Amino acid sequence: MEWLKATLHINTNGQGLHPFTDEVNAKIRQWEVSQGMAFLFVQHTSASLMINENYDSSARRDMERFLDHLAPEGENWYEHTIEGKDDSPAHMRTMITPTNLTIPIDNGQLNLGTWQGLFLAEHRHRGQRRKVLLRVLKV
Amino acid sequence: MEWLKATLHINTNGQGLHPFTDEVNAKIRQWEVSQGMAFLFVQHTSASLMINENYDSSARRDMERFLDHLAPEGENWYEHTIEGKDDSPAHMRTMITPTNLTIPIDNGQLNLGTWQGLFLAEHRHRGQRRKVLLRVLKV
Amino acid sequence: MEWLKATLHINTNGQGLHPFTDEVNAKIRQWEVSQGMAFLFVQHTSASLMINENYDSSARRDMERFLDHLAPEGENWYEHTIEGKDDSPAHMRTMITPTNLTIPIDNGQLNLGTWQGLFLAEHRHRGQRRKVLLRVLKV
Repeated sequence: MEWLKATLHINTNGQGLHPFTDEVNAKIRQWEVSQGMAFLFVQHTSASLMINENYDSSARRDMERFLDHLAPEGENWYEHTIEGKDDSPAHMRTMITPTNLTIPIDNGQLNLGTWQGLFLAEHRHRGQRRKVLLRVLKV
Repeated sequence: MEWLKATLHINTNGQGLHPFTDEVNAKIRQWEVSQGMAFLFVQHTSASLMINENYDSSARRDMERFLDHLAPEGENWYEHTIEGKDDSPAHMRTMITPTNLTIPIDNGQLNLGTWQGLFLAEHRHRGQRRKVLLRVLKV
Repeated sequence: MEWLKATLHINTNGQGLHPFTDEVNAKIRQWEVSQGMAFLFVQHTSASLMINENYDSSARRDMERFLDHLAPEGENWYEHTIEGKDDSPAHMRTMITPTNLTIPIDNGQLNLGTWQGLFLAEHRHRGQRRKVLLRVLKV
């Protein structure tokens, strides 16, 4: 077994879901990993990871709006408001969506289902450069 | 260390939580794994995985209703409605519940707590045949 | 590669987020693990794990209140009420927050982002002694 490491940098252009399946599969090909396990870890508290519907943009927009409804901006009970009205909701959205993912690798790529894609969810308004740690156990 | 692979097929008979702890433990026994780590990955965007209360059916019904309250059908802001009124809520429920789980194996079985059980959460109305990838690192 | 195991006991003094990053890093140092992967698994159905903002107490209080808003006590549709008014909401909060985490280890410690910390989320009112399984793959 072998341990492979990389850091992916995802530039988000603002709040919402940013696909990055291809960046992970490119690394797996470059490393020539046929099978094993991919571990992803986002090093932020106002961004998270997601595996979900990858083909229909109206489904994606509904998922983005869903987070606005679950953790809206400007609730009167928010205490942590000094870093912007999107900051406390960003931590809340991070609480209920994954910071880490584990995905099997088979046949030289992530073994996703037909409709699945990998997303970085940016929870702040402003686009940022986000760091995702990729670790692969090659078996 | 050894790498073991199987695909579990879970037939859901409709929306709700479907227990499948026994199917995973049966594989672990068959493979004669004493200790290690089990990785589970569901290959769908309208079903997810869950570890939760396994003994009280009223607790389970409350958990099922909870998803109906968090992501109800028929909200007027839903845009993605062409695949049925349960489709966009199914993606939303998948967002906030796990697509993947990692569970320690000890003494030849999943090392769950006393009250914990493993469930596949079917988010569509219609029962379906769902695929869950099981990977085990035998140590 | 090497497999290391420990059980952490976290005493919670009541409902809320309890930091325990230091307990995990202490084990990693004791085991002299330079790099690898840490796997955490909480053996309960009314407590969960979280990685989130670790420095601002007002952000933490907002996250705690957020769970009260998502899964409040005393909804009229709750059926499972015999174990206390905080029991069914505790299972619901466990559904939408992680039972397990996977975190890369580098340079002899958890490779967390600047603002990230590890928390056990106690969802019952009463403080309890909670068990978290720690497994480390040393590579």
